[in-house]
Amino acid sequence: MPFINVKVIEGVFTPEQKTQIAERLTDAMVSVEGENMRGVTWCVIDEVRSGDWAIGGQGLTTEAVQALAAGQPA
Amino acid sequence: MPFINVKVIEGVFTPEQKTQIAERLTDAMVSVEGENMRGVTWCVIDEVRSGDWAIGGQGLTTEAVQALAAGQPA
Amino acid sequence: MPFINVKVIEGVFTPEQKTQIAERLTDAMVSVEGENMRGVTWCVIDEVRSGDWAIGGQGLTTEAVQALAAGQPA
Amino acid sequence: MPFINVKVIEGVFTPEQKTQIAERLTDAMVSVEGENMRGVTWCVIDEVRSGDWAIGGQGLTTEAVQALAAGQPA
Amino acid sequence: MPFINVKVIEGVFTPEQKTQIAERLTDAMVSVEGENMRGVTWCVIDEVRSGDWAIGGQGLTTEAVQALAAGQPA
Amino acid sequence: MPFINVKVIEGVFTPEQKTQIAERLTDAMVSVEGENMRGVTWCVIDEVRSGDWAIGGQGLTTEAVQALAAGQPA
Repeated sequence: MPFINVKVIEGVFTPEQKTQIAERLTDAMVSVEGENMRGVTWCVIDEVRSGDWAIGGQGLTTEAVQALAAGQPA
Repeated sequence: MPFINVKVIEGVFTPEQKTQIAERLTDAMVSVEGENMRGVTWCVIDEVRSGDWAIGGQGLTTEAVQALAAGQPA
Repeated sequence: MPFINVKVIEGVFTPEQKTQIAERLTDAMVSVEGENMRGVTWCVIDEVRSGDWAIGGQGLTTEAVQALAAGQPA
Repeated sequence: MPFINVKVIEGVFTPEQKTQIAERLTDAMVSVEGENMRGVTWCVIDEVRSGDWAIGGQGLTTEAVQALAAGQPA
Repeated sequence: MPFINVKVIEGVFTPEQKTQIAERLTDAMVSVEGENMRGVTWCVIDEVRSGDWAIGGQGLTTEAVQALAAGQPA
Repeated sequence: MPFINVKVIEGVFTPEQKTQIAERLTDAMVSVEGENMRGVTWCVIDEVRSGDWAIGGQGLTTEAVQALAAGQPA
């Protein structure tokens, strides 16, 4: 039953990282709901274009998120 | 009023099949709500990248879905 | 794989009609994708509060939708 | 807290218009909730492929929307 | 075409404020897309239960959001 | 940036379990994206009414999910 939908900005995560996201979020969900629910736990990642995500009205680019992740001023 | 949103993996359906999906889901909805509601029945298809859809934590590719649809072991 | 999400205004449809919506939309989807996909075709109905759905900025109530469905002026 | 998600058809709006959409919707939201909430007001724009958006079962293309916006018959 | 979906925590906004949100977000959208698009601009508000919205893993209650809106420490 | 939205059927999880879901999914996301992103990692849980979630066209009730979680035949 649970449907986990993760929205991210495109280009921030590599395919390997997106695989990790799906695995780890599913494992986290299963740790609460129980292993019997694993087969009906879905996780879907949506990618949004760079610039099409705004916080407080200011558009975020892929580069700004990468700088934030690296601890650099955006 | 009804807003029907269908998430699928990209590349699984042809444009013609996506047209069929929108037509048939709309007709199915109208068969319940009544013909007067047709004009306010919207159907939007979102495509998710191959690999970005996981079941039980295992990523599904376009090819895996096509194999499943064809009745082949994935 | 397909995830069908239907947003409606609460109180417009009875539980029986919502069961019909889920059945018929699933059947419509399966008619395109093939019967092998039925088990991985999910349909979820979200209900939105009366008044919390606007078209052109005008809020729709449950009563207005019922009048529209019945072919009466809203 | 508020999460504003805007679905549009791809190619209808330029990047500059999408920036305006995010800014103006955020400002509109802040005008109701108060300026203290600006930093936690997110606005994300999803683009759907031309043809993958149907009204009453009829697919809308980017061109049809542009014609509608221009006041021309679609 | 545009479909604007606003997620908020229940109890934060009064019905009158939700009416304002729908009106002002629609007007903001129309100011970019043009008046001809007003009739196909939908705005739907979803309410999430108090506590079911987390930032950085910390649940937000209706009261915490009201305190933030009022400029008080949460 | 990441916005994690989890849809579940109402009544399946207690408030304490929903708190765990938000904490653990956020921690799982942060384990991939890095600790600097925690403050902009949102997790929102939507509850759908019992019966309004169908798999293969068959409605799932809260009780059916609880039986599945407990390893009992649904």
